[in-house]
Amino acid sequence: MKQTLSIVKVGSNLIEDDKGFVRILELFSKLPGNKIMVHGGGKKATQIGNKLGIEAKMINGRRITDEKSLEIAVMVYGGLVSKQIVAQLQAFGTNAIGMSGADANAILAHKRPVTKVDFGFVGDVDKVNAYGIFKLLQAGFTPIFCALTHDGKGQLFNTNADTIAAEVAIAMSDQFDTTLYYCFEKKGVLEDVENENSVITHINSKTYEELLAYGIISNGMLPKMHNCFYALKNQVKKVCIGDIDMLEKGNPNFTTVTL
Amino acid sequence: MKQTLSIVKVGSNLIEDDKGFVRILELFSKLPGNKIMVHGGGKKATQIGNKLGIEAKMINGRRITDEKSLEIAVMVYGGLVSKQIVAQLQAFGTNAIGMSGADANAILAHKRPVTKVDFGFVGDVDKVNAYGIFKLLQAGFTPIFCALTHDGKGQLFNTNADTIAAEVAIAMSDQFDTTLYYCFEKKGVLEDVENENSVITHINSKTYEELLAYGIISNGMLPKMHNCFYALKNQVKKVCIGDIDMLEKGNPNFTTVTL
Repeated sequence: MKQTLSIVKVGSNLIEDDKGFVRILELFSKLPGNKIMVHGGGKKATQIGNKLGIEAKMINGRRITDEKSLEIAVMVYGGLVSKQIVAQLQAFGTNAIGMSGADANAILAHKRPVTKVDFGFVGDVDKVNAYGIFKLLQAGFTPIFCALTHDGKGQLFNTNADTIAAEVAIAMSDQFDTTLYYCFEKKGVLEDVENENSVITHINSKTYEELLAYGIISNGMLPKMHNCFYALKNQVKKVCIGDIDMLEKGNPNFTTVTL
Repeated sequence: MKQTLSIVKVGSNLIEDDKGFVRILELFSKLPGNKIMVHGGGKKATQIGNKLGIEAKMINGRRITDEKSLEIAVMVYGGLVSKQIVAQLQAFGTNAIGMSGADANAILAHKRPVTKVDFGFVGDVDKVNAYGIFKLLQAGFTPIFCALTHDGKGQLFNTNADTIAAEVAIAMSDQFDTTLYYCFEKKGVLEDVENENSVITHINSKTYEELLAYGIISNGMLPKMHNCFYALKNQVKKVCIGDIDMLEKGNPNFTTVTL
């Protein structure tokens, strides 16, 4: 039987909130078995960028990463947020290592090709080095990935953290029974976006089509749902979507997505 | 027979210079055997701090680390400089992992006690987790340490990179034949500080006393020399001081320090 592995993506909003930040790291520490965290940090990067006089450029809600913005992403995701998470996890007894996709050559990517939009230094994932990550897990370490990848030739890229979580989960699924947790500020996928208590506890391919047809899955959730099914179609066993409480043992109030 | 291990401390000035930066990483990549890098980044941190309106506070040439300065150190040493080094080393085929002392619980420290001066969030090293670092080396990774430590309770500290290099070298010397390289902008310890060609190629405890007595070792070199003998008295086999070329095979023009 395969060992289990939990991949927990922690959203940027949760990292902003000091209390929530500590609580999520405590709950993550208590998760049994092998585990990996993937975190954002976009809001903090925007704040620091603004202070440095570098405005975040957005097109259709997607961040454009010019050279200066990449520097800030590397400083904030790869430095400030990563090391604060690691130091706090060590306090909770989890032997964490904060990593970009360049560390341990973990995540290789290429610059997103320019079509209508040039996203700048945004990387699309080519390959997750599952064996390198496996060696870290095997040695007792807990990898904490920020939303950075590299091209193997010295160039770092900004890469969407949800995508990284899905790609890492897929790559590790040859070796592990993998569950992917998308942890964000809502209790799950909501039937009524205004009502926090309308969590849809289970979605599968069939009900997903229905939810789409009725317009219940809203714009913001579409890329996340796309990542869910992409992961599930590539050997990931289960995807869970919810807020911090999702990681609390015995809490049923979140969304589970299966094929 | 013990395996060899090279610990290379790369000074902040070398990191500022783009050409030198790439060259030193290439030479580091070519070093045979197990290796670890320790890097500074103080100048870059000062630049970015200034842009953010946070001035570096110095007392007697030592940096005072308040909360904001620590944030910048974590962003710049732990993020920007660390990840740029790692991405470039991967391009040279070295499987690097950029780490603070919190990652892999590698370097534990306590806040420097307040006497005449409160240095702020500056950590004095208590313990280097040699076994954790050994496991990374054994798994084929090359640890790249920045000048940050932690207290195991969630607090990060700024710690002098020369000291970190010495402490890591000492801790690893139970298991390895360790050589410590202090790589900076000069060709070595100079007999005449104005003359780059006056490198003293060998210093031992006896000649060191003489050099001190004649005032040849200048103020700036004293803490470095202190670290050298501290390391040598604690099982480190050899300390070498010089510029980038020191890592070039066959170059004799640097200072070797032995007991």
